[in-house]
Amino acid sequence: MIPQGRRGRAARQSAPVARTINYTQLRNPFTPQSVFSDDEVAGLHDTACKVLEELGMSVLLPEARAIYAAGGCKVVEDMVFIGRDVVAEALRTAPSGTRLRAPNPAREVEYRQGSLIFTAAGGCPNVSDRVRGRQAGSLATYRDAIRLCQSFDVIHKMPAAPEPQDVPLHLRHLKVTEAQMTLGDKPLTVYARGQGQVEQSFDLIRTGLNLSQDDWTDGVWATTVINTNSPRRLDLPMARGIIDFARAGQMTIITPFCLAGAMAPVTVAGALVLQHAEALAGIVLAQLAKPGAPVSYGGFSSNVDMKSGSPAFGTPEHLKMQLGAGQLARHIGLPWRSAAGSAANMADAQGAHENIMGLWGATLAGATLVIHAAGWLEGGLTFGFEKFICDIEALQTIAELCVRPEADMDAMAYAAIAEVPPGGHFFAAAHTMERFDRAFYVPVVADLTNHGTWTAGGALSAQDRATAIWQRVVADHVPPPGSEEIAGRLAQRVADLTAQGGALPITD
Amino acid sequence: MIPQGRRGRAARQSAPVARTINYTQLRNPFTPQSVFSDDEVAGLHDTACKVLEELGMSVLLPEARAIYAAGGCKVVEDMVFIGRDVVAEALRTAPSGTRLRAPNPAREVEYRQGSLIFTAAGGCPNVSDRVRGRQAGSLATYRDAIRLCQSFDVIHKMPAAPEPQDVPLHLRHLKVTEAQMTLGDKPLTVYARGQGQVEQSFDLIRTGLNLSQDDWTDGVWATTVINTNSPRRLDLPMARGIIDFARAGQMTIITPFCLAGAMAPVTVAGALVLQHAEALAGIVLAQLAKPGAPVSYGGFSSNVDMKSGSPAFGTPEHLKMQLGAGQLARHIGLPWRSAAGSAANMADAQGAHENIMGLWGATLAGATLVIHAAGWLEGGLTFGFEKFICDIEALQTIAELCVRPEADMDAMAYAAIAEVPPGGHFFAAAHTMERFDRAFYVPVVADLTNHGTWTAGGALSAQDRATAIWQRVVADHVPPPGSEEIAGRLAQRVADLTAQGGALPITD
Repeated sequence: MIPQGRRGRAARQSAPVARTINYTQLRNPFTPQSVFSDDEVAGLHDTACKVLEELGMSVLLPEARAIYAAGGCKVVEDMVFIGRDVVAEALRTAPSGTRLRAPNPAREVEYRQGSLIFTAAGGCPNVSDRVRGRQAGSLATYRDAIRLCQSFDVIHKMPAAPEPQDVPLHLRHLKVTEAQMTLGDKPLTVYARGQGQVEQSFDLIRTGLNLSQDDWTDGVWATTVINTNSPRRLDLPMARGIIDFARAGQMTIITPFCLAGAMAPVTVAGALVLQHAEALAGIVLAQLAKPGAPVSYGGFSSNVDMKSGSPAFGTPEHLKMQLGAGQLARHIGLPWRSAAGSAANMADAQGAHENIMGLWGATLAGATLVIHAAGWLEGGLTFGFEKFICDIEALQTIAELCVRPEADMDAMAYAAIAEVPPGGHFFAAAHTMERFDRAFYVPVVADLTNHGTWTAGGALSAQDRATAIWQRVVADHVPPPGSEEIAGRLAQRVADLTAQGGALPITD
Repeated sequence: MIPQGRRGRAARQSAPVARTINYTQLRNPFTPQSVFSDDEVAGLHDTACKVLEELGMSVLLPEARAIYAAGGCKVVEDMVFIGRDVVAEALRTAPSGTRLRAPNPAREVEYRQGSLIFTAAGGCPNVSDRVRGRQAGSLATYRDAIRLCQSFDVIHKMPAAPEPQDVPLHLRHLKVTEAQMTLGDKPLTVYARGQGQVEQSFDLIRTGLNLSQDDWTDGVWATTVINTNSPRRLDLPMARGIIDFARAGQMTIITPFCLAGAMAPVTVAGALVLQHAEALAGIVLAQLAKPGAPVSYGGFSSNVDMKSGSPAFGTPEHLKMQLGAGQLARHIGLPWRSAAGSAANMADAQGAHENIMGLWGATLAGATLVIHAAGWLEGGLTFGFEKFICDIEALQTIAELCVRPEADMDAMAYAAIAEVPPGGHFFAAAHTMERFDRAFYVPVVADLTNHGTWTAGGALSAQDRATAIWQRVVADHVPPPGSEEIAGRLAQRVADLTAQGGALPITD
């Protein structure tokens, strides 16, 4: 389709690409989309309040029940009944946004409606790549994943996965926090697996970054995802995490995982009522523990696959729940997190389909934070290195759309159109030559060569090509400026905490 | 993640899926999105008018130039200069929509802003599948492609590709039209390759469907895509096609293929100015040939890939041009066609990424018709059978989103939430059992089994799985009711036209 031997092409191929785009601070350019009327959204909220008021939540941590009771909730054995006045007051004190602080100030992002923040696969116990195969996550593979996350600006926040399973449970949080802070400089994630681990992780952040108490409470240095145990249960570590993060001024992201037809009603509206009730219960606990504590609404509802019974992602029902969750978040005026991700077993067309559908769902739903947006395979059981690279292409595409095209006289190119005769071409037009090195997004993994060239090159799939890419990115990774000082400060404290026995996770 | 041995699952697996969703008439549920301000859109339109007025279009067909001249345009040699008054008058007479008629009335669709119409890969000379390999298209593979298109309701309109290259050029239009009408019952496509072919194709439609002259002019029975020869040239067959379709009351879809940095300016705004000018020139010709003739705006602008010089699809620039083209179509008040598609060489993650990105771009841009939405590989050089199946999953996902979720009391499932205790599950809840067989979209190609099961099944990619699927769909295809009568009426006419020598295409 392109004439060969034309002027301009050789110049384009030899010239360095001068394009630099800032992916670090994204504002969502799309109008949030709806699947429910405003009345219906009010009805969903009202029904969720009725669930909390009349059916209640099972809360397993006695201290949490005491906090709810002190805040005016009725407590009967493990059940907590939350009145809508208590919910309304919590929504009044919960901030509409906060600043996610980071080791590097240039990496800080505003966590509020309108922002678009991406983070990589979370929660994965396993890793998979085409060199080392599929295996349990290790500290080495976690550190490689952090190197990948650091190397792409479109990943805005560090994950605490894939899980380094070769590090003993009582020390794992130390190594995870240390890796995030010494290999990268982006906002940090701490798992809420008990007070001991949380406090030690906070300690490492303050120590590594040399934060004063004022620094520490100015914005948020650590975030954690709180998953309720749907339906209607808040277990020990999750309730503990809400309380500890709130009191420390750090952010919990309250995210029921409501799988319609399994742990939630089979309908979109029913799953969202349950999600909303459980999220509100968590938000209430955070606000009762410390009014004004940063807290995020969260939604990760989807459906079960009818054939396998497995959680499905990127499905129509998933997208409808994303869009509905966005409406509920706007209804209560809080920032919120959604997720993309994939149930596929490899970085194939299914994997791309599922992740990209969920990514658009989250984006059009006005999600503040999109978790699992790169590398999530097998419904979260595996962090895929090739999948990560393929997903980066999708995230960068969305990031590029956050910048509007120019439309001034120059951009409209009347002079260039006048210069090129009918049937001619624009390769060598001055307008083209001045702009070709920054005009277009340069793909990470896409191969646009023709079939002959592609076949001669081994007929590689995108997944095949991604192997060399992640290997090169990991090999080229350089710890950010200042990380040596951070590493130095952390080394002694990690040794001390290790000598003290670290901290075991708590479970329910 | 799902407890095993639960009640309900066995019932779900053995019960037939009772879900039926109507994909035949889709209304776009999303608010059209913008990349330009209203002033900028007016500026783009104004600049395009200036291009037509001052720089002109090269029009190679003398009869077309005579029509432009009679309509008040200045003609100098092959150049036609179109005043903005002529453009305004054409936009006044062009209808804002029309009905696409079809052999089966249930397949008819309204072609106007707000409709969402999908069609498969167009223009492909080659076909590719994992059984027969990559080869030149043949009548056999064209007929298989038509069987696939007929078998999925989410494909609303028949393509005239992949090209049956084993049928001689002077007879190909006869076999293509016959295949569309005897293997399917959806709206038809006729290529504009000269008056002889067009008239014979129209003749076959009228004969096969036994249409009176009144039937024939009530709505549109045949559509064709008109590609200008960018920049600023309308060649012989395309100008001929606009005139012949307009006079016959059939629809032309005027679609410049403005590749930014090659046949168009390198900027998004510049490429759109050229696209808009060329599309307006075609619309003007249709309206001057017959005021009120059905005509569609079209945009298929994208960028060249900086590494290979090839056309790229699903890129950020492509999506920005889709969104901008949608704004221009709304500015002039016409329905319009966009396109998805892929430059990938196989149905891999890249192929899915490119097509799904373009599909969302078209959907959010408010496109009436999305061409190349299933099966388009190698930038249109190849119709991929496995790619078609993978793309159907994306189209059906979008189609499902056209239906809002229910939000009445029953759907909100308060009673079911009350029935299931904290930490329990909804598998056997009455609310679930009543709905599980129609609650969720059932995937075509996605495999959600766990890694062990998937590996035991051969670790197949989505592309691998798609092979068995398209083979089964083709094998299961049954010609629609009434097709025998149509075939009977066509057989003699095709024989007669063949005996007359068919009609050779014209070229420029």
